[in-house]
Amino acid sequence: MKIICQKDKLVNAVNIVLKAVPVKTTMPILESIVIEAIDGCIKLVSNDMEMAIETVVGGRIEEEGQIAINAKTFSDIVRKLPDSDVVIDTDEKNQLSITSENTFINIPGKSSEEFPALPEYQKTDNITLSQFTLREVINQTTFAISTSDSNKLMTGVYFEIKQNNLRVVALDGHRIAVRQVELKESYKDKGVIIPGKALNEISKILTGDADSEVTIYLDNMHAIFAIDDTIVLSRLIDGEYFNINQMLNNDYKTKVVINRKALYNSIDRVSPLYKETEKRPIVINIEGDNFELSLTSSIGNIKDNINIISEGEGIRIGFNPRFIMDVLKAVDDEEIFMYMSSPKSPCYIKDTENRYNYVILPVTLI
Amino acid sequence: MKIICQKDKLVNAVNIVLKAVPVKTTMPILESIVIEAIDGCIKLVSNDMEMAIETVVGGRIEEEGQIAINAKTFSDIVRKLPDSDVVIDTDEKNQLSITSENTFINIPGKSSEEFPALPEYQKTDNITLSQFTLREVINQTTFAISTSDSNKLMTGVYFEIKQNNLRVVALDGHRIAVRQVELKESYKDKGVIIPGKALNEISKILTGDADSEVTIYLDNMHAIFAIDDTIVLSRLIDGEYFNINQMLNNDYKTKVVINRKALYNSIDRVSPLYKETEKRPIVINIEGDNFELSLTSSIGNIKDNINIISEGEGIRIGFNPRFIMDVLKAVDDEEIFMYMSSPKSPCYIKDTENRYNYVILPVTLI
Repeated sequence: MKIICQKDKLVNAVNIVLKAVPVKTTMPILESIVIEAIDGCIKLVSNDMEMAIETVVGGRIEEEGQIAINAKTFSDIVRKLPDSDVVIDTDEKNQLSITSENTFINIPGKSSEEFPALPEYQKTDNITLSQFTLREVINQTTFAISTSDSNKLMTGVYFEIKQNNLRVVALDGHRIAVRQVELKESYKDKGVIIPGKALNEISKILTGDADSEVTIYLDNMHAIFAIDDTIVLSRLIDGEYFNINQMLNNDYKTKVVINRKALYNSIDRVSPLYKETEKRPIVINIEGDNFELSLTSSIGNIKDNINIISEGEGIRIGFNPRFIMDVLKAVDDEEIFMYMSSPKSPCYIKDTENRYNYVILPVTLI
Repeated sequence: MKIICQKDKLVNAVNIVLKAVPVKTTMPILESIVIEAIDGCIKLVSNDMEMAIETVVGGRIEEEGQIAINAKTFSDIVRKLPDSDVVIDTDEKNQLSITSENTFINIPGKSSEEFPALPEYQKTDNITLSQFTLREVINQTTFAISTSDSNKLMTGVYFEIKQNNLRVVALDGHRIAVRQVELKESYKDKGVIIPGKALNEISKILTGDADSEVTIYLDNMHAIFAIDDTIVLSRLIDGEYFNINQMLNNDYKTKVVINRKALYNSIDRVSPLYKETEKRPIVINIEGDNFELSLTSSIGNIKDNINIISEGEGIRIGFNPRFIMDVLKAVDDEEIFMYMSSPKSPCYIKDTENRYNYVILPVTLI
């Protein structure tokens, strides 16, 4: 194999495929990137067996071929090369030589035949949305997945398509994040559970451009994201997702209209006194138009007051402050609406247009 | 005690004294900041028994007094308060209350009597230089101290005053960093060893302003730095510093004039293949006006060439790349001069005006 490409294009492509190179693995070959120069096209490929990435690098092929090369070494070397053309050449013993201006490097590679082939997939059902929208819904929901593997379903994010509506759901047993977006076209009804970890990596590849599109192909085993010159393939999580409709209701006894930034700052002020291990929640006390946050822990005690508009009954209810903070970061409305019924019932933070609905379970007050 | 000060001034002062709060200590009281409101002046004080810091906070005293308060808790709380006036109040049980706008906080403090008093010192010998210059000489030398405690002298930086000349020296057995600055006045000859760790913290307090001055008082036990409203007191390291004059000589067989940035980039390109544990140095091969860097390690091999101007004999000599990088970061000349005599003799990187002299011992080539 012999190829010539520009350093910056090569670095960009390496940065993309690095996202599917495992940090720890029992299969050392997976620590590689495969460089492929076949059919007039240069591609980099990585695969951690949960997610695989394939991206095209612009460049010239002088001799077709392919090789596997340690991802970390190759990435460290390539990003420090001069800003110039890079010639990558291999010999029959899988030695890789990299030449750029006055720099000459030799590193041993491996045969790409050892590298697992990308799984077969079908390009049947698909939906198209903007890169901006996909990145938004990922970042606004994945924080609510479970970080523990004890319930696999909770480590995934549910993508549910009904006609021209995409609903994205994540939950961890203490909270639920629901986002809805309208698609430009109608599609066949479908629901899949995509690993949250893969989605977080995909959100970093997305440009966030509202004019660029991404197409998501869904077969029974995989979700395939086609993003510009890159294909990201993620396994789906097998199983039936939770019936969340029965967890979302519209009843409430207390409704609060509150400035998002004021609530954020208030919880931020209270947080230094919060200790996760002590299980003492922050207490929200609503009486008329006064919203008081208070916390007593082994560090000390704090009270903080915000002016609000409230409707219905007063309430005293406890929360893990992090769960509210996460929602406040995922929303950008200036004012938000909170709906509560009792100190033991979930609190809903949702808008009036049904774009989002965040559910947080309270912590019992002693 | 009852005081009122602005949040931002309080946060600045806390950030300064935090630098002498120990991360680990067997004396829990040292994890505190002392707030002192005495004689019309509000001060914060910290002390890790190697270094002590005292800084003045602008504000109003309503009732004099003093208290010790956990530094981390106080710092976390204060930086999140509203941008407004902060009222700090204590009661006879050393409870501290902090009030700002609609926020009310209570945390337990401790009697400041438990906190060790700052050591007595004499304001006799002193030198004055600009904050800019002191920060420069600290940052340009402390990287060369030893990080191991096995030789205490090597963890310090030698400040040597001779008339109107200040020479600052650091070394770790593999390299020496020497910086010289001319002072505005002449002072009594004196030499002290100041802990490198303290100097690194002091450099963060210095504004880097060329028009602001710092006065350094030196008694037999301490160096005291007076920086604006802050006093930093550091213990000196006891002992006789190395006679470095005999390590600095002006003989050479090879002289090289090289572009600093080109050499930096070249070593940076080679470094991904360097493994500290393998003890294989980067090899510099100088022949006429070609400067070749090469390295062979378990990762692979690399050659990189730079155009230079050389004088004298050719040479092949090995180095730990980090030691050269550290010097290149500490110098800002566009072109630097390297002087070498043999593969076993030190390499000197020094300017022609005697402002700096960096000595690096080579690594034996096998």
